[in-house]
Amino acid sequence: MSDTQGILIAIGGHEDKDGDRTILKAVAEQVADGCLVIATVASQDPEQYFEAYRAAFGALGVSDVAELYVDNRAQADDPELRALIAGAGGIFFTGGDQLRIASQIGDTPLEEEIRTLHKRGGVIAGTSAGASVQSDVMLVDGSGDESYRIGDMHMAPGLGLIPDVIIDQHFAERGRIGRLLGAIAHNPRLLGVGIDEDTAIVIESNRFKVIGSGAVTVVDAGHVTRSNIAEAKPDRVLSIHDVVMHVLSAGDDFDLGSRRPGTIRSE
Amino acid sequence: MSDTQGILIAIGGHEDKDGDRTILKAVAEQVADGCLVIATVASQDPEQYFEAYRAAFGALGVSDVAELYVDNRAQADDPELRALIAGAGGIFFTGGDQLRIASQIGDTPLEEEIRTLHKRGGVIAGTSAGASVQSDVMLVDGSGDESYRIGDMHMAPGLGLIPDVIIDQHFAERGRIGRLLGAIAHNPRLLGVGIDEDTAIVIESNRFKVIGSGAVTVVDAGHVTRSNIAEAKPDRVLSIHDVVMHVLSAGDDFDLGSRRPGTIRSE
Repeated sequence: MSDTQGILIAIGGHEDKDGDRTILKAVAEQVADGCLVIATVASQDPEQYFEAYRAAFGALGVSDVAELYVDNRAQADDPELRALIAGAGGIFFTGGDQLRIASQIGDTPLEEEIRTLHKRGGVIAGTSAGASVQSDVMLVDGSGDESYRIGDMHMAPGLGLIPDVIIDQHFAERGRIGRLLGAIAHNPRLLGVGIDEDTAIVIESNRFKVIGSGAVTVVDAGHVTRSNIAEAKPDRVLSIHDVVMHVLSAGDDFDLGSRRPGTIRSE
Repeated sequence: MSDTQGILIAIGGHEDKDGDRTILKAVAEQVADGCLVIATVASQDPEQYFEAYRAAFGALGVSDVAELYVDNRAQADDPELRALIAGAGGIFFTGGDQLRIASQIGDTPLEEEIRTLHKRGGVIAGTSAGASVQSDVMLVDGSGDESYRIGDMHMAPGLGLIPDVIIDQHFAERGRIGRLLGAIAHNPRLLGVGIDEDTAIVIESNRFKVIGSGAVTVVDAGHVTRSNIAEAKPDRVLSIHDVVMHVLSAGDDFDLGSRRPGTIRSE
């Protein structure tokens, strides 16, 4: 990666908006020149999201904000919207449905502008759906609080800003370990990263550090010795042997290349 | 272990009582001579439990059942109750509160009779609280659906029929991976075994096999490279690096000595 490439921040949802704002502060600090674009594309009711983030970022000194919303895919060609991203210092994707983001702006000129923003050093951040969409493959659906059954297959391509990673959010709160294990069982090339609420990973040059009040669970199927994902019937529960799991919290970091955790400082 | 030692069956709760009854059938098959004692000690409202299991086991051909209930610890000395266990072919602990079982009959003559029953080949089975109490150390409390915080410390000694293991139940359904990781972080000597509802482990000679419709999650902290359990403040979230995790389902087995999973047959 080049030195100018911007930072990516993936947030597990429900980040603190009126207390310490640890996570939003980390986003705000990365916005240098230009406005911060609040992309509410994931939502069908964008107004409330935009107002909440305008207030939260305003309190952190980022007053130059603009909303990005597209109602249908044709709008992703709009020169005005492209110019908005071209002049931005960063973009923040709100929550909603990650499939709305990917299906509305995936493979459009607008997505290309977002990649260009990232390459020239702009921050790309997102919470909940806005975190999932940054990864290569995203979990779209799938129940929480149950073991994964072979037939529960709900993945879709994301924007792919973070290669070879599948991000899940609201992770501990919605009991999503089962569905993340199901996802990585399909192809251990994908590293599973489950982010709790009010918790984020800050990715810079193929490493991430953890910030916020919860945990980030990393599941690595690279050394799995057996799974029944390919052979079993759809209603069968997943078997998977020898997954390596790391639970990381603030002060921990992780190298996405070597897939090894580390600790910057203990708290 | 000697050859006559009985089988242990630990069930994750909510086992099927009126369909295939796969799990209760496995219990019933182990009851040879003598009655099956239904121990409702875990509950403060034992009558409903006893009637439900009398009906379910009756339908499986086990009609010689008796209830074991103690209202207070002094009763655990009762010669009649001791004689009941001495003449039994097996014992089945119902759900409720595992701390009631351990505190009422732990280290009493009644517990000694239960150990003797196990040694002479009788089956010891239990569901939910009745599964937890079989392990060396049991989780008594601790929230589901959240990452483990250092101060959440709710373990207690169990009956210790299964050494060096900590069993948790209703596992995926109540999102209990966080609390089980917290437990094994305290001392990696303990292997964490989380059993889903309508799922059981059948333990014979230091190996268990999985039966039922859900999964059994094994977490092994034996190769952990770092955790913050000893140093961090009580409200900090747990960090733990390099846990080995196995998700097992019907047809899988596990060697408790070598801590290695295997597969008897795929389904």
